[in-house]
Amino acid sequence: MRIGVLGTGTVGRTLASALLSGGHEVRLGSRTTGNEAAVAWAASIGGPASEGTFADAAGFGEIVINATAGTASLDALALAGAELLAGKLLIDVANPLASSNDMPPTLTVCNDDSLGEQIQRAFPEVRVVKTLNTVTAALMVQPTLVDGAHAMFVAGNDAQAKSDVGELLQEFGWPASSIMDLGDITAARGMEMYVALRLRLWQTAGTDVLNVEVRAGG
Amino acid sequence: MRIGVLGTGTVGRTLASALLSGGHEVRLGSRTTGNEAAVAWAASIGGPASEGTFADAAGFGEIVINATAGTASLDALALAGAELLAGKLLIDVANPLASSNDMPPTLTVCNDDSLGEQIQRAFPEVRVVKTLNTVTAALMVQPTLVDGAHAMFVAGNDAQAKSDVGELLQEFGWPASSIMDLGDITAARGMEMYVALRLRLWQTAGTDVLNVEVRAGG
Repeated sequence: MRIGVLGTGTVGRTLASALLSGGHEVRLGSRTTGNEAAVAWAASIGGPASEGTFADAAGFGEIVINATAGTASLDALALAGAELLAGKLLIDVANPLASSNDMPPTLTVCNDDSLGEQIQRAFPEVRVVKTLNTVTAALMVQPTLVDGAHAMFVAGNDAQAKSDVGELLQEFGWPASSIMDLGDITAARGMEMYVALRLRLWQTAGTDVLNVEVRAGG
Repeated sequence: MRIGVLGTGTVGRTLASALLSGGHEVRLGSRTTGNEAAVAWAASIGGPASEGTFADAAGFGEIVINATAGTASLDALALAGAELLAGKLLIDVANPLASSNDMPPTLTVCNDDSLGEQIQRAFPEVRVVKTLNTVTAALMVQPTLVDGAHAMFVAGNDAQAKSDVGELLQEFGWPASSIMDLGDITAARGMEMYVALRLRLWQTAGTDVLNVEVRAGG
């Protein structure tokens, strides 16, 4: 498939490279065409890899992935343009961290709202699915970096969109049994608020290559 | 040991009964002496079980447990009295849920503060340890209700207090290897914000007898 990835940071480039390895065509989008990281990335791969503006990537993709910083996501999506996004599956992997340096970290939206919901409200024609925001970039595309079963959450209002995301997650190596559908896009609140716990677990474990497995009894 | 448990709801009574089974003396405290649930609980057990006001329970306990509703905790602790609490270990197991019925749930404090921190600031002479708030009451005192290893977090500013809490947790059946010290009391933010995810997991799993295991790689 043709996939547009918005955001040229570690998360965007990691996802884009993994999607290319899976046989997809990928356009990496940034605020301005010719972004240094994006050009270097596309040149190093060639062929099915290209770069451009947010709008270029959004127009290119049958699926669009929001891998921008959470604080920049709504602006980036506005630059991509509602018309180019309309009807498409938008996979939102961002966390609304106020800063990547604050410890303890704070979120710019939480509790009674979430970035996932803000995006869905701002772009009602888009089918938003929140996922992957609960793990670090390397683990997103290589879940075997952590031994044993561990969970990947998805949330969104469109069942078919979540099913399509499940297939992409399985291409990345997530077993179907590890993919947990938490319901509608309001579940993005819990998925985003979990980042506060995850960053403490990172401090404790000494690595950000970590995740949780959910165990139910009864 | 003599332990005062503030709060006569399911959490308070479950903890109190488990502590009695472990050979401790327990006084259950509520807003007014003669609380119906507390009297019935104490009468059903006798001997090492007693009930009284928050101040009665706080004065009785060498250790005090806050098992009140999060929205009522600061008031309950004020009624218990700073003098009676001073120098003691206070185990805070509460979540600051605005309502137990809202879905999605919201917290009355989160992101840049937490109930655990509010309590520590309001009672600086108390050694606050946050723990057990990430699981349902039955699981707090019987971790084997969920198969396999799963995590119990502790956070607080006093290392000895966290060590003492670790011993109590082990009396409840938590293996030492499952107890994760997340650092100072600011880690209560992540532990409390996780409730938003946990309540969605409950919806998905169909049971609140659930918990997470933390897995780290690389």
